Amino acid sequence: MTTTANPSRNGVDVATLFATLDAVKEQNEIATFQFRAENTWVSGTHSRSRYSGFYGAMQEMEHKHETVVDSDHPAVLVGQDNGPTPVEYLLHAIAACLTAGIANVAAARGVDLTNVSSSVEGDIDLLGIFGLHDGTVRNGYKGIKVTFRIEGDADDATLREIVEQSRSRSAVYDALTNPTPVSIEVVTG
Amino acid sequence: MTTTANPSRNGVDVATLFATLDAVKEQNEIATFQFRAENTWVSGTHSRSRYSGFYGAMQEMEHKHETVVDSDHPAVLVGQDNGPTPVEYLLHAIAACLTAGIANVAAARGVDLTNVSSSVEGDIDLLGIFGLHDGTVRNGYKGIKVTFRIEGDADDATLREIVEQSRSRSAVYDALTNPTPVSIEVVTG
Repeated sequence: MTTTANPSRNGVDVATLFATLDAVKEQNEIATFQFRAENTWVSGTHSRSRYSGFYGAMQEMEHKHETVVDSDHPAVLVGQDNGPTPVEYLLHAIAACLTAGIANVAAARGVDLTNVSSSVEGDIDLLGIFGLHDGTVRNGYKGIKVTFRIEGDADDATLREIVEQSRSRSAVYDALTNPTPVSIEVVTG
Repeated sequence: MTTTANPSRNGVDVATLFATLDAVKEQNEIATFQFRAENTWVSGTHSRSRYSGFYGAMQEMEHKHETVVDSDHPAVLVGQDNGPTPVEYLLHAIAACLTAGIANVAAARGVDLTNVSSSVEGDIDLLGIFGLHDGTVRNGYKGIKVTFRIEGDADDATLREIVEQSRSRSAVYDALTNPTPVSIEVVTG
């Protein structure tokens, strides 16, 4: 472990990472982003979202490639199982957000990682969404558990601090653990 | 619009949907589910999740197909843009959950839908995750806005009630708008 910045440590361009932070410090408006998805119902519980554009760094931007993702319910929940359930995408989101942060924080601290993987479990009582309860069962997850396995050229305490720093700066961790306002507009035709 | 159950209204097997609800009423344990994802870091801010198994209806189950999804940060956020950002998956999750509910509720109410689509926008100030603020900027979305376009053989008020009923029973809406406990365990190697 060294503290010398390496332009490609963990696949992270550390010099550009710090330059980006400096640019945002100079001009806070660069940090205003809007992410977007376009969803279309296919049939039954099956729908499909596309991601292409977003706003950030004071301009409209496009992802390098459009991404298409499907959701459905499995047969046991009366769907056709054409993709993971919507709630399963939350599990990917939290793992991916924490993992990206881990790679960035480790790179900034001069730690070379060799492996980061995680298992995510979300426990949910569907009595909530079925409405079959006396008001005591929530619709969403009772809890989500993320188990990380992390290896790199740093001691146990340092690796744990990297995960903790990632958690403390994670957008998805905040979005899930604290209330996020969601507004719904309806246009009928 | 009729109120006669149709086994394939909106692609929803209404008879099986009601039979499933009856079965859960009889035996609440059927509703205990655990969803899972396995995430592996690839490089930099790029990671990949796989979905295959889950627990539900008192047994281990497998999705019909394994699904693999990637996340990365775009170049403007010092990534390689190998997929949508983690926070963008939250936008798919909320749209897909509400849409699945809309199809189910409409089918149960005897409404034939012809089109459901939605645009989702999530506004976020990245000063939060960059830590460049005085404690006033959250890490996650300031707010998420979902705009539905819905068409079917029912009047405006009925279509709006269907969306509202879906919202009130949505697992992802609850997970985002109310605090969801997330625990993180770390195993170092």
